[in-house]
Amino acid sequence: MPAIDANRLLRDLYALREIGKYKTGVHRPTFSPQDIESRQWLATRLGEAGLDPVIDGIGNVLGHDPAPGRKLLLGSHIETQNHAGWLDGALGVIYGLEIARTLGHGIDVAAWVDEEGHFGSFIGSRSFCGQLTEDEIDQCANRETGTSLREALQQAGYAGRPRIEVDPARYSGYLEAHIEQGAELEQLGLRIGIVTAIVGSRRFRISFTGQQNHAGTTRMAVRKDAGVALVKLVAGIEARFPAIANKRTVWTTGDIRLDPGAPSIVPGGAELIFQFRDTDSTVLDALEATLNDLIAETNAGPCSAVIAGRSTSEPAMMDARFQDALQTAAEAHTPGRHQRMPSGAGHDAQILSRRLPSAMLFVPSIDGISHHYAENTSDEDIVLGCQVLADAADALRTPS
Amino acid sequence: MPAIDANRLLRDLYALREIGKYKTGVHRPTFSPQDIESRQWLATRLGEAGLDPVIDGIGNVLGHDPAPGRKLLLGSHIETQNHAGWLDGALGVIYGLEIARTLGHGIDVAAWVDEEGHFGSFIGSRSFCGQLTEDEIDQCANRETGTSLREALQQAGYAGRPRIEVDPARYSGYLEAHIEQGAELEQLGLRIGIVTAIVGSRRFRISFTGQQNHAGTTRMAVRKDAGVALVKLVAGIEARFPAIANKRTVWTTGDIRLDPGAPSIVPGGAELIFQFRDTDSTVLDALEATLNDLIAETNAGPCSAVIAGRSTSEPAMMDARFQDALQTAAEAHTPGRHQRMPSGAGHDAQILSRRLPSAMLFVPSIDGISHHYAENTSDEDIVLGCQVLADAADALRTPS
Repeated sequence: MPAIDANRLLRDLYALREIGKYKTGVHRPTFSPQDIESRQWLATRLGEAGLDPVIDGIGNVLGHDPAPGRKLLLGSHIETQNHAGWLDGALGVIYGLEIARTLGHGIDVAAWVDEEGHFGSFIGSRSFCGQLTEDEIDQCANRETGTSLREALQQAGYAGRPRIEVDPARYSGYLEAHIEQGAELEQLGLRIGIVTAIVGSRRFRISFTGQQNHAGTTRMAVRKDAGVALVKLVAGIEARFPAIANKRTVWTTGDIRLDPGAPSIVPGGAELIFQFRDTDSTVLDALEATLNDLIAETNAGPCSAVIAGRSTSEPAMMDARFQDALQTAAEAHTPGRHQRMPSGAGHDAQILSRRLPSAMLFVPSIDGISHHYAENTSDEDIVLGCQVLADAADALRTPS
Repeated sequence: MPAIDANRLLRDLYALREIGKYKTGVHRPTFSPQDIESRQWLATRLGEAGLDPVIDGIGNVLGHDPAPGRKLLLGSHIETQNHAGWLDGALGVIYGLEIARTLGHGIDVAAWVDEEGHFGSFIGSRSFCGQLTEDEIDQCANRETGTSLREALQQAGYAGRPRIEVDPARYSGYLEAHIEQGAELEQLGLRIGIVTAIVGSRRFRISFTGQQNHAGTTRMAVRKDAGVALVKLVAGIEARFPAIANKRTVWTTGDIRLDPGAPSIVPGGAELIFQFRDTDSTVLDALEATLNDLIAETNAGPCSAVIAGRSTSEPAMMDARFQDALQTAAEAHTPGRHQRMPSGAGHDAQILSRRLPSAMLFVPSIDGISHHYAENTSDEDIVLGCQVLADAADALRTPS
């Protein structure tokens, strides 16, 4: 089993961390100057590793092994959330670089653009998988600045280049490593997670309409309080979802707004953002049916409620043979200290898995922290994760 | 019974409406140029009516009857909420002016500054009643612009003037007319409301603390969701308050905020603004005890809750003899089409009633609208209300 170069791996991760460094983390949003610099930096490293580097028309960075034969594709993303951690995404990309160097051939490396969604939803991996239309590109814009994706691509120098799409004949599969972004591995004293599936999610914006009124002069019996209607619906979710949910189902009311939101005014409007996630579509369907029941109950009362926005992603199953390869490698290097587990967060692998056999490996997140500059993983776990992934890649690149 | 001059009354109300006119309403916040102009306009009108006009060191406009003998004080306020109605406050002040002119003597007129709370809480009537310290004036500032009250008084030209305080030997009592700000009179087909009491209110800012986390990777069992804790408390209020409340008790959650308020983040913090109002202090005490029970129940769970802010006003009872005088006058002019009722909104009369026998008269609000430029009352009801108040004032100014 070829051994990775732990010092070279860490040196590259540390070097990438300097581009857009923020406290102990990184601020490198998609198509910021720091993000564009990091893409060029990565392309240079891929070339030094003997791969043919290219940055395509959507901003994906790819390193192609020039040798003949089928390849295994390894990757993740290198842009970050705002003022976020140094490993989220970068870890999986630099693992790919290090494994391509270690194995010498049979490995392609990818950094998918904008996994963090500054401009859209998985636009890099969806472009590669043939799911991103030119029309959608026309409509994407930075969620904070409003800069259009077209303009950002122009400024980055990527506009007009072809977008590279997956050639299924070239690849035997896709592997992605990532920090766990939760505290489960750490709490169980484990060092490797082997992802069984990436959860599907359904996200809803629900708007409530009542009647705005004076909070002193409007009697309770005649009120149409949109805020109370919202609270009763959320309380209904909390009361009914546990009986329908799986052990690992999660649901979250992330935001609530009352309109006008003044102390002495009965709210005439209200809005919430709600989502739930599970790896089982039948569970997602059952939860959505219950949500619709609760909305119907609201509409039988003094206020009305409507789903003003809905977006979904389906659960993505990881390939069984790839999971087995990861488990064999993990057991060899850290016997008994690994587990199979779903991913509660979304990853590019959920897109790739529709086109290629795919799998994911998790390393522990210290205190479970992610999307924050304090995010970290011990050097020992970083090195172990890369070696386990290298072993699995070595086993998988030669069809058994 | 002396008859008021309906045309003169309406002409003055229309003239005042022109100062800061906004659509069909008025934008005349405290110490805006329009508000200062309207104070000078009123002082001039009071002088023309034979009263000695003065604008004092807090901005109150007073018209003193120069004749000897005890006086009845009539008033309300002339500044408005932002982009609000033309009658809220102005009605009661111009009634005072018209009744002083009609009765010829025995009437003082007041326009209390900032009843609407742009700078503080009832600073005009509280100054007059000896409840506003120089220290509090130092601390007041415009809630929108941050301009200090001292600076605003300086710019208006009122700084350095004495503040006039009530002389209980001068006054036999206080009368205030106001629009109802609700739809009850209209719905019952009534034309006059005689206020029995002004509700007391208790207002709370409640902060919830949990733990911010990733909404995909954090299992339900380990979450400390501050938003869920907030929703359960509000649902608890809605479940338990009806059994404790009086028929006219009102309670309102006016605002809710989740922190950080993002779709995929378990809220680590949350805050709400809650208030309740009743004319009975024992009911207010019982409601507050239940609120404290609910907060204690929250603190027994995964999140903590604290009352981060609390402000209160006590219920104010209106004088029985003054109510009788208003009822006799109402019955004479609109037999059977009047009722006694509490005021769910706050008014300067709740401050004055601690120092002088006080009472209030309501006229109907069309569709119950107030604090909006569409606020209105029919001319017939405006004229009727002034005549009823004039009769009551005539009866009350001569001790029986």
